[in-house]
Amino acid sequence: MTQEDPPGARRPATPRGRARRDQLVRIGLDLLAEGGWPAITARAVADRARIRPGLLHHYFNGLPGLHVAVAQRAGEMIIDPVVDALLAAPDTPAAVQALRDLVPDMIAGERNLRLAAELLVRALRDPRMGAERRDWARAVRGRVAARLAELCPDWPAERREGTAMLVTALLDGLMLQLILDPALPADPALDATAALVGKP
Amino acid sequence: MTQEDPPGARRPATPRGRARRDQLVRIGLDLLAEGGWPAITARAVADRARIRPGLLHHYFNGLPGLHVAVAQRAGEMIIDPVVDALLAAPDTPAAVQALRDLVPDMIAGERNLRLAAELLVRALRDPRMGAERRDWARAVRGRVAARLAELCPDWPAERREGTAMLVTALLDGLMLQLILDPALPADPALDATAALVGKP
Repeated sequence: MTQEDPPGARRPATPRGRARRDQLVRIGLDLLAEGGWPAITARAVADRARIRPGLLHHYFNGLPGLHVAVAQRAGEMIIDPVVDALLAAPDTPAAVQALRDLVPDMIAGERNLRLAAELLVRALRDPRMGAERRDWARAVRGRVAARLAELCPDWPAERREGTAMLVTALLDGLMLQLILDPALPADPALDATAALVGKP
Repeated sequence: MTQEDPPGARRPATPRGRARRDQLVRIGLDLLAEGGWPAITARAVADRARIRPGLLHHYFNGLPGLHVAVAQRAGEMIIDPVVDALLAAPDTPAAVQALRDLVPDMIAGERNLRLAAELLVRALRDPRMGAERRDWARAVRGRVAARLAELCPDWPAERREGTAMLVTALLDGLMLQLILDPALPADPALDATAALVGKP
């Protein structure tokens, strides 16, 4: 995820500050995977990092800002690799191949499964987090549409935007189905995508 | 949704019993739309229906059974019309047209938007509700695959199942994107689907 930091959060200027901020986000991510959002308290983070709780205010403008930073990091880990590979693909068959390679990994393992579910629940429950995810989804659709403008320059803008929405809805939907049914094999759906997209 | 009732729930034998059960589910649905799952308490339902709270045990084996029945009814209202129209379509262009006609209505209005979000959150949060939604999604994929067997008898089973997963993931993903971004127009994505599926 590439949004701006939440209002008031400070981007540390020094390598040491950035390392500290990064450490706090990683601790938040661990707590999220272990116990969901309620587990990310100022006390739990400060204890695990051995810092004063006041540092959360310094780096994140408080606990809500840390929650947003943790959601952004979880999204970067789970979804961004798939989107990046999709956008780097030189043509449509390569893009489908990227999906086949990476979608099954999106929520591989108990930890990613848990993080992906917590991200979705929070976005659906909490208007601020919902707005963050909406803005991020808009940015992803914009990136896909821009890539389609390079690959299919003769398409009208509306078709590029519609296809970007189709691609991202498919990613969201596959992730949702795999969260609820982790034993479900994704390969046949990706084969079907390849067959559909690959039609001459 | 067409699952069995939760274990222990009784299907009323008389028209009067069925009407009463239906009334209680409708009240649960109203409470869900007004205040989310925590609003569906035995007391709130009993007060609104002017019944003894004990009747919840009679009809639903208690409050958890009522919650499951409310989730099933919400699913029937929001998702089943789209799936039914998809399956009734005589051919692929008609199926795409059914999506174009019905997807924008899935979460039209504040109430459906709220119900759709509450359904998803509960399925992601609550293992029993997650298992219900997983089983229901499997049943829907099975129905789509069976319909594809009629429309495309030469396809191998794996392609039918993969396409069924693709179609249902697309529905789930579009619903998720529209929940988080209700102003998003779905038409271009459905036009893009039509263009993709309709390629000669």
